[in-house]
Amino acid sequence: MTTEDHMRGVLQAYIGGFNAKNSEGLAALFADNAQIEDPVGGGKIVKGRVAIDDFYRGAVQVVDELELVAPIRASHGNAAAMPFDIHMKREGRSIVIRVIDVMTFDDGGKIVDMKAYHGPGDVIPES
Amino acid sequence: MTTEDHMRGVLQAYIGGFNAKNSEGLAALFADNAQIEDPVGGGKIVKGRVAIDDFYRGAVQVVDELELVAPIRASHGNAAAMPFDIHMKREGRSIVIRVIDVMTFDDGGKIVDMKAYHGPGDVIPES
Repeated sequence: MTTEDHMRGVLQAYIGGFNAKNSEGLAALFADNAQIEDPVGGGKIVKGRVAIDDFYRGAVQVVDELELVAPIRASHGNAAAMPFDIHMKREGRSIVIRVIDVMTFDDGGKIVDMKAYHGPGDVIPES
Repeated sequence: MTTEDHMRGVLQAYIGGFNAKNSEGLAALFADNAQIEDPVGGGKIVKGRVAIDDFYRGAVQVVDELELVAPIRASHGNAAAMPFDIHMKREGRSIVIRVIDVMTFDDGGKIVDMKAYHGPGDVIPES
């Protein structure tokens, strides 16, 4: 279940889910025991079905668009990664957050761990 | 030592080191006890000073160019990530390997862990 094609498809569906504001579809990409660290080093972990459902319900409301900025990368194991830009509004201003997500999959083909790399310097005004 | 600016600078120096074929400079970005998994899931870990020095001595000989394809991402912790393309020759043919590297830093500002995400499907003919 963690073939390259499967993992690339899930990451593409993640982008598409945001752009369709489909929070249930996004949450369904994750295993019930999955955990999300977004941003890495931010000190907050989203863990488990209820928290993940809540996380994406809120996220689709504030995100205008996710834009993949280079092709999804897979691996020789159970993980894949992608660079994208989040277009959203914060305090009334249009901003871009530059992100790399690394997704690790379980044997059932669900995301079991997500790490989102972006720092304060990756938040820039929309051009 | 693991400020955003420092980490971004090290990742930029990693690109520059390859393009200058400076294997000693590349190896010096890593802590003596660092480990490298390239590719993730490939079953081989490069660990420690001697192995890292050897790894980059060989790598600069086969790589023509590293091309950053989107801005380096930092984090709120001790890690940063970047998407790039490796331009190189393999069995006489020019190829591109699409990669995302995730680098984790120690308190001294050296890379202590590198994970390189790329799968068989990320290797394509040079266009």
